[in-house]
Order: sequence, then C-alpha cells, then structure tokens
Amino acid sequence: MTSAEPRTLVETKTIRLFDENRPLDFVRGGRLSEVNVAYETYGTLNRARDNAVYVCHALTGDAHAAFWHEGDNRPGWWDVMIGPGKAIDTDRWFVIASNILGGCQGTTGPSDIDPATGEPYGLDFPLIDMHDFVTVHRALLAALGVEHLHAVVGGSLGGMQVLDWSLTHPEDMDQAVIVAASSRLTAQNIAFSAVGREAIMRDENFYDGRFAAHDANPTVGLAVARMMAHITYTSEEGFEEKFARRPQFDARHPGFGVDFAVESYLDHQGSVFVNRFDALSYLYLTRVMDYFDPFADPTAMDQVARTALKYLVMSFDSDWRFGTAHSRRIVRRLQSRGLPVSFREISAPWGHDSFLLKIDPYLDTVRAFLEQPATPKPSIHRRRMGRHH
Amino acid sequence: MTSAEPRTLVETKTIRLFDENRPLDFVRGGRLSEVNVAYETYGTLNRARDNAVYVCHALTGDAHAAFWHEGDNRPGWWDVMIGPGKAIDTDRWFVIASNILGGCQGTTGPSDIDPATGEPYGLDFPLIDMHDFVTVHRALLAALGVEHLHAVVGGSLGGMQVLDWSLTHPEDMDQAVIVAASSRLTAQNIAFSAVGREAIMRDENFYDGRFAAHDANPTVGLAVARMMAHITYTSEEGFEEKFARRPQFDARHPGFGVDFAVESYLDHQGSVFVNRFDALSYLYLTRVMDYFDPFADPTAMDQVARTALKYLVMSFDSDWRFGTAHSRRIVRRLQSRGLPVSFREISAPWGHDSFLLKIDPYLDTVRAFLEQPATPKPSIHRRRMGRHH
Repeated sequence: MTSAEPRTLVETKTIRLFDENRPLDFVRGGRLSEVNVAYETYGTLNRARDNAVYVCHALTGDAHAAFWHEGDNRPGWWDVMIGPGKAIDTDRWFVIASNILGGCQGTTGPSDIDPATGEPYGLDFPLIDMHDFVTVHRALLAALGVEHLHAVVGGSLGGMQVLDWSLTHPEDMDQAVIVAASSRLTAQNIAFSAVGREAIMRDENFYDGRFAAHDANPTVGLAVARMMAHITYTSEEGFEEKFARRPQFDARHPGFGVDFAVESYLDHQGSVFVNRFDALSYLYLTRVMDYFDPFADPTAMDQVARTALKYLVMSFDSDWRFGTAHSRRIVRRLQSRGLPVSFREISAPWGHDSFLLKIDPYLDTVRAFLEQPATPKPSIHRRRMGRHH
Repeated sequence: MTSAEPRTLVETKTIRLFDENRPLDFVRGGRLSEVNVAYETYGTLNRARDNAVYVCHALTGDAHAAFWHEGDNRPGWWDVMIGPGKAIDTDRWFVIASNILGGCQGTTGPSDIDPATGEPYGLDFPLIDMHDFVTVHRALLAALGVEHLHAVVGGSLGGMQVLDWSLTHPEDMDQAVIVAASSRLTAQNIAFSAVGREAIMRDENFYDGRFAAHDANPTVGLAVARMMAHITYTSEEGFEEKFARRPQFDARHPGFGVDFAVESYLDHQGSVFVNRFDALSYLYLTRVMDYFDPFADPTAMDQVARTALKYLVMSFDSDWRFGTAHSRRIVRRLQSRGLPVSFREISAPWGHDSFLLKIDPYLDTVRAFLEQPATPKPSIHRRRMGRHH
C-alpha cells in the first residue's frame, strides 16, 4: 500500500534576502552583505493572509520539513507533523519552512564563499545570536508578502527560535508552539556541546576552519560529535528497548570494532552525518544555544505581555537533554507575567528526539492548539485597539 | 593546619607474577609470558593473617589508593576512604591495592613491550575479561602470603571486579563491598564508551595501535573520550551547582574557545588525562566493562550460595552512569539465591564520582559493614567444616 501512495513532490527554493544595499547586521557584531535563504512552502496562503504557520528547525534540520524531494527515500524531517489532514494541516494552513542562518542546506553559512575574499568565511563568519535567525525569518516573510502569522512552531533549537521571536516581535503571531526546548542551557548541556566542538576543532583536518582551502574535512571530529550528541537525543530506555546488549550480527569476534548493535547504529549515525552536514555550521549553531538566555533580561517580556499571544509549551518525560524542567522554566517565566500558556508533558520513551516522531497525543495536542480561533477575546481586542490608535 | 599535618609517604612496588614458567592465560584466549603488577599496601598483616582488605580500582585508577607519594600535591585516589581511623582503617586492616591488568600505571598493559617482539603489544595484547583481573589479584595475594581476605572493596569497574571475584572465588573472602557498579551495562553505557573508543581509534595518531613506534600519541581522541566520559561521571545537578552558566574569567570575547567555566573545567580534565593515561589501556579497560554480564550464566551463583559471604551494595541517587537501578539488579540477583546483602542508596548530588568523595553516610556505612565480625554463624560453620573435610 505505502509504495503505491502518491507522493507529493516539493522543491527547495532559494532567495537572496540581504545584499550590499541591505546588509544583515548581527546582534553580536559583524555584517554580511549577501544572505541567501533556502525555504519551502506547503499549502496555500488564503485571501485574508491569516493562515500562515512558520516552522523553525532544530540543530541539523533544513528547509525540507515535509513531503518528498524527487528521488529521496524519505520525506521531510517533520512529515509526521505537516501535511494534508496532519497536525499542521496543509489543507488549512500555509506553511513556511526555511533553513536557518549559519546552516549548510542552502541558507548562507560559514562554509559559503565570502564575496569580499572569494574564500569561504570559515571562522570569520560572525557569531550568531538566536535573534539573528529571527531577523532572517522575518525578512523571508516580508519577501513572501506575509504580514502576520497564525503560529510559529518549532522543536529543540527550533523552539528556542520561537521563544525569541515571540518575545521580540509578538505582534508577528497569534500563537507560539515551543516543543522540547530550553530558555537556558545547563552546564551539562553546554558541556556536551563543548566536547563535540572540541572534537571538531582539534581534528587535524580542521585547519582553523579553513579546511575547504586544504581540500580537507574534519570528518572524524564531526562524526564523533554527532555520535555523542545522538546519545543525548535518545533515552536510556529507548536505547535499551531498541538495542539492549544485542551483538551486531556481523561481529566475527570480540574486539574493538562494532561488536554490539548499538555501536553499529552510532557508527551509521556518524557516517551519514558527515556526508550531509558541515563542521562549521555545527560549531556556529551549537554555540547559539549555549548563549541563549532571554529571560536574563528583566524587560524580555514587556512587549509580549501587552499582546494576547498564546503559548503552547510541550516536553517529553524521557527527554534528558531539554526535559520537562526546561519547559517548566519557560512556562513559569511566561506565567509570571500573566501570559496564557498551555503546557503538556507527553509520555514517550524515545528521549529528546520524540519531537520528531509520530506520537499521537503529541501531534493531537499541536493540532488542537492550532485550531483555536484567533478570534478577538477582550485581551486581543485591547491589543488590536492599541495597535491602531 | 592541613599544611602542617605530617604526610605519611608510601611507594608503589612492582612484582613479576607471571613469567615463561607460569604464563597468564586469558579467559578469551591469548597468553602473556610476562606480567608485572604494581601494588601498594597499608597497615600491617596481623599474626592470624585475617585482617587483609583488597581494594580494586576503577577505570582510570592505579595502585596508589591512599597516603602520599613524595612530592605529590594530592594523596592517593581513595584517601578519603583509607587511612588511620578512616572507613577502611589502616590501624586495623592490612590494605592491598594494585593496578589492574591492562592498565598503564605499572601493571603490564598493551603499551608495554612484548618480550617476544621487542615492540609494544598494541592491539595484539589479548582481550581482557573481568575474570583476568581477578586471576592477577589472586596471584598477588599468593605472592604476599595472604590466604584469605576479610573483604574485597571497589567502586565502579572496581566494584565489578569485586562482584566477579566473589562469584568465582567466594572462599577468598568474608565480605564483598560493591559501590556504584553494574552487573550489565545498558546500551547507553556501551554507547558512551563506544564513542570514546571511536574518538581514539579514528585519531590520525592512533596508527592502528602502533602509535609509540611512530613516536605519536592519539591525544586528541583520548582527551575527547575523557571529556565526554567525565560528563557522565558527574550529575547535571553537580555541574549546575559547580558551574551553572558562569563565564570563564579569561574569556575575552564570545567565540568557540573556553567561554564558560564548565568548558575550562573539561578542557583541563582532558589535558591532564592525556599526560597520565594510555590510549590503549583506555580501549582495553572500557571493553571489559561492555562484555561483563556474570548473571547471564545461570550457574554463576552456585559457588557463592554455598558460602556465608556477606555483600554490601551501594549506589548514589544522582549517579546516571551506574545508578541505583544497576545496584538493585545486583541485589535482586544475589538475594534470589538467599545471599545476605545489605543495600544502601546514598543521597549525594555529585553523580557517579560520588564514590570517590568524602560523603560521611557513605564512608560510615562502609566502615560499619567492615567492622561486622566474621564470627562463625551456622552457615559459615558449615562452609568451614566443608572446606576441611
């Protein structure tokens, strides 16, 4: 049956959003005079232009969130969430997904060519702040002629973008959906990312970030970083259920090779990753998370508190990367300013990566939240009044 | 005061326990015709020769468990546990500590010279089984003229040696103290070790284990392995308490260097480790743990069930490497054969490494257990009768 199902094909488009006349200035300093953004859209923007939903991806995601690219053997990374009749229903919503700034899947990043030098930026690429992602997302919206979003939705680093966006430009959206995210990494979170970066930067093929000029690639470091991070994306329970201590079927004799099934799995994760991801993007994007701490600014919620923006915050009980404690902190902060927040912890054994999986109570919660009408409540009324007078 | 305290100096001794006339045959195959063992002893063996306590070390420990080496700025790794008036009271007990087989602190390991070739063994060193450690420990005891132990004590990999020893040669001891150990690694445990080994073996300076012949050392991989493992030795809470998101004081500007205090700490852990530990030992010793699964053999407890050996099993509530679930599994298995097991979970926020720290309820529990007299109970009586008739 499944092979006979018609596959809806989509393509990633690319658009230049910043150029010499309109450069991108970074929050932490630095400027780019050329920024291209890769994006996809699904569904149709309605006449009222009020059915747009923006999807923000996680660390290693891309603009291809749903449906199929011709020739691929798997659909976009959030195809369980986005599609006709799915939680983010493309029969109803006009969905926009883009690759984030600093990425390596079509949007300008540190391994792209600096037009000023003709060489890849390398470590001369400006340090990225969470808000720089939002600046680029908003430029894409403007280019697409979308003035207002029904919702912004994202998991993990995607959820952090949603949080930043909702705090800095709450007028852009009616709803914010933040899944398995954090408003402030713990020392342990930073530690795991730091070791991954060390593995990359100490790789002899890193060449201080100029590996492309040496026709090299720090694949050992990048694979090690990915394998380690992958352990933190699943749960002990999930690993145990999937692998336990099962030996790898082709392990001929015990030694230091791939003896256990879990080793084979990690090995595969590392190998696949180095073929699709860039080491510099890995450095830049993980560092954005380390520094993200929006509520450290006591005025962070001043803007959103004047709106009727509604939040949905979700976590998974087996997530030990950005688990329920992280989500609860976000909820507490938002509620401390009287903001309407729905919170739900989903029980699922697959750890942090649960946000990518078909878990019905999770998807149903997102669907139901998005279906809430953005009709004028008293508070919304006040906001709209306020905006026009 | 502390600086004025007299420091008791000790020295590590080395003894050849296996040679051409008495080679060491490994459980998984392979043979060494020369095995030296580094060890230390503290206290005095009494006339009855019944006050000996054997201490087994963890992955990166050594024979220097207590007191001071001349010129060192810190005492042995378990000095909080071992000493006059301490839990393992050297005024009462004769304590033996040795570096394990495959180690790199004086006992023969894979980076030592193979007398047959004049080159380091490298990956030709036989694969080690937990029981090979025990075989060497027992040979040391014989050489020291100690026929019976009051107790065998160890934490982490040390506790796993204690468990193996107690199951295979229960007649050697009256008591077994197993702290923060496991009878069977989870897939997640194996995964973390596997990534550490990958980092080492993929290091361009590994040279298939023959790095010494190339005057090289896979320090990048070894440091990365250590940094990652170190995260698993502490707890999220412990890291948070110690570092939180505190910036490193000498971080001049944000980037990819050591910006956060936790990064500085990990960096230091990695640097220190590569100067004191050998990459091949790291591979061999971690692999022993992956394969350890004594209760998979249904006859594993047949011998110990005929003795009156008493167990103390302890865990720490913040340990997420070999946490309470691992200890409880050991307890359940032992109790299923009616063995006397005392179990205690200690509340401490420092994760797995708590077993190395001065935590009074922990140390007091070990002390009280060791002080239990090994006086003839009916069951012990039967055993002793059985041995002599």
